[in-house]
Amino acid sequence: MIRIGVADTTFARYDMGRSVIDELQKTDTGIVVERYTVPGIKDLPVACLKLFRERGCDIVVACGMPGPKPVDKISAQIASTGLMQVQLMTGKHIIEVFVHEDEARDSKELAWLSDRRAREHALNAYHLVRDPAYLTRFAGQGLRQGFEDVGPVEGSVGGYRH
Amino acid sequence: MIRIGVADTTFARYDMGRSVIDELQKTDTGIVVERYTVPGIKDLPVACLKLFRERGCDIVVACGMPGPKPVDKISAQIASTGLMQVQLMTGKHIIEVFVHEDEARDSKELAWLSDRRAREHALNAYHLVRDPAYLTRFAGQGLRQGFEDVGPVEGSVGGYRH
Amino acid sequence: MIRIGVADTTFARYDMGRSVIDELQKTDTGIVVERYTVPGIKDLPVACLKLFRERGCDIVVACGMPGPKPVDKISAQIASTGLMQVQLMTGKHIIEVFVHEDEARDSKELAWLSDRRAREHALNAYHLVRDPAYLTRFAGQGLRQGFEDVGPVEGSVGGYRH
Amino acid sequence: MIRIGVADTTFARYDMGRSVIDELQKTDTGIVVERYTVPGIKDLPVACLKLFRERGCDIVVACGMPGPKPVDKISAQIASTGLMQVQLMTGKHIIEVFVHEDEARDSKELAWLSDRRAREHALNAYHLVRDPAYLTRFAGQGLRQGFEDVGPVEGSVGGYRH
Amino acid sequence: MIRIGVADTTFARYDMGRSVIDELQKTDTGIVVERYTVPGIKDLPVACLKLFRERGCDIVVACGMPGPKPVDKISAQIASTGLMQVQLMTGKHIIEVFVHEDEARDSKELAWLSDRRAREHALNAYHLVRDPAYLTRFAGQGLRQGFEDVGPVEGSVGGYRH
Repeated sequence: MIRIGVADTTFARYDMGRSVIDELQKTDTGIVVERYTVPGIKDLPVACLKLFRERGCDIVVACGMPGPKPVDKISAQIASTGLMQVQLMTGKHIIEVFVHEDEARDSKELAWLSDRRAREHALNAYHLVRDPAYLTRFAGQGLRQGFEDVGPVEGSVGGYRH
Repeated sequence: MIRIGVADTTFARYDMGRSVIDELQKTDTGIVVERYTVPGIKDLPVACLKLFRERGCDIVVACGMPGPKPVDKISAQIASTGLMQVQLMTGKHIIEVFVHEDEARDSKELAWLSDRRAREHALNAYHLVRDPAYLTRFAGQGLRQGFEDVGPVEGSVGGYRH
Repeated sequence: MIRIGVADTTFARYDMGRSVIDELQKTDTGIVVERYTVPGIKDLPVACLKLFRERGCDIVVACGMPGPKPVDKISAQIASTGLMQVQLMTGKHIIEVFVHEDEARDSKELAWLSDRRAREHALNAYHLVRDPAYLTRFAGQGLRQGFEDVGPVEGSVGGYRH
Repeated sequence: MIRIGVADTTFARYDMGRSVIDELQKTDTGIVVERYTVPGIKDLPVACLKLFRERGCDIVVACGMPGPKPVDKISAQIASTGLMQVQLMTGKHIIEVFVHEDEARDSKELAWLSDRRAREHALNAYHLVRDPAYLTRFAGQGLRQGFEDVGPVEGSVGGYRH
Repeated sequence: MIRIGVADTTFARYDMGRSVIDELQKTDTGIVVERYTVPGIKDLPVACLKLFRERGCDIVVACGMPGPKPVDKISAQIASTGLMQVQLMTGKHIIEVFVHEDEARDSKELAWLSDRRAREHALNAYHLVRDPAYLTRFAGQGLRQGFEDVGPVEGSVGGYRH
């Protein structure tokens, strides 16, 4: 039984946590999901810590949507640094699903991007905890979550194309 | 009995600590407030640590008002990073109520914004410590504290509108 | 008996440590001062740690004067981050007295500003360690150290004016 | 028997991990390689921690390819800061092989640069763990990994030229 | 017997480690030097940690030469942050001798600057470990390492001029 945490925010403008949970449940019926919602991205690290320590998660997917202003970019950096610290304190992965509001041209694309990135990273989290060797077959393949994969550069030897 | 810490500064130009305390007391008569005032935002992290360790708080609301200069923005970043560290050391939330002096058009709006953000975050702190599951119903709903909620993006499936 | 540490640098262009010590001694004859001088601001954090651990200080005032170049600003940020860490390691306050060389119009103002900020922060340190509740009466009052207080914003309810 | 970890990503557009492993195996037949692939560079630090703790590595080579956007640069900084923390937690070196996508003029050069930097840093890792005194003969010699060595500056006394 | 560590890099374009060692040996015949050379500045922090823990150093002088590109500036910041952490982990000073390649007009000045800064900081390290009270006589005197001292500002009271 795998226990996967989902931490998300009320600040985000798309319910990425729901996409993550839906994708996980379609993938494997043996997954238990623990969800924890906080106000903003800087509240995510301690939420993740609680998901590991108080709810026994094996991995956490942390979803957030930084706004477009400089102060939002700084918040995202502080949040990411905190998520890093939690990973090193616990020795466990946190897969960060951050969609910056200014990555998309309009709100329709923002919704599409949020849903897709959340789902693709849900699978990354699943594979990392299910079989840590799984992703090596895609090493250096230019994979992206959300927008299209960019692929390996010309001159790469052989390799799998996603 | 919930014990909520309020850390604030003499540097700020609005008494956000008072707004937080007033809102908490209107919300629940069973809350004990512990207040600690320091000179500036970089003094807040150790103040919060003391509120957790020496005064037994369950959560802390940290209020600050960074000035408009580049050096003030750096101070805010260092302060936030310190607040993050305290959260990870204690495993408890600190709700950061920072109002940047240049967020408002004039000092009247600054006072209004400071009061309202302080009150809305006081409620976030209350809900987080009272019922950690409470905020999930607002996940991805584009909530803001102070200015109007921006709401979820077009294309979001269903969901509660605040 | 209060034991207050003073950490300062040979890089600074004004002897702020002397101002701090002079102000403390005028304020309370029961203060023991421990002074430690290092080359630059990035050497201050471990100096403060030694003042706490090896010389038993209750609080430390850390004085530095970052230069005007971008590399100096980065050094100031790293130094501040280190001072933050020392505070969180020891659970004690470090009052940072940094005067940026480009804050003043000329060297005369720089000397004046350095002396005054050092003295005002010396008092902040004294009050924090003597009576942690003291500063709450000035919460949100827009106090500054060195230049004039900016005061609370229009719309603030009542409150003390410094 | 030396145990060298190789951590890399599916985000990178060149399989640098393969280059590292190939170079190590050509250098010394007594090396055991442990490989761990994660989605992106911010996932590398905990991957390295696992390579040290769970797989007994003596040193790790961490390969990543930050993209050209500002958000990618921030990610690289957070990843590097995390790699630093892991080194200080374990007391062991992590050799960072980061190739920024915008370092190369075209994708052909990017492939060449990635391969060469990976191989040269693989040797650095090997020497550091095999004989920590080895690199002192090249101290201050302006060595680079990938592009040509820039060499020591005019006025340097004697010294080895690579 | 004082044990002073010297950590340096193969990336630097001047052998500052040699200058440090030469200056220390001219100053006091009772100093034991422990040297450790790594590829780049981000490898210095763990090298310093090893010099403290595995080779019993009392203080370390860490020499590096960040390149002129933005990515090099970020590396310098990460390296400095790591050096800070090692100091706080061990409670011992690391004197950072960083010469930015773009501080000098040409490579001749770069060599001169590197040698002189290394020597002057070698003496700072020596004094700090030999007699921690020594530098207080130079507090606030505007000392610099490498280029000329800038001196105290007009309005400073009395004080020693270097």
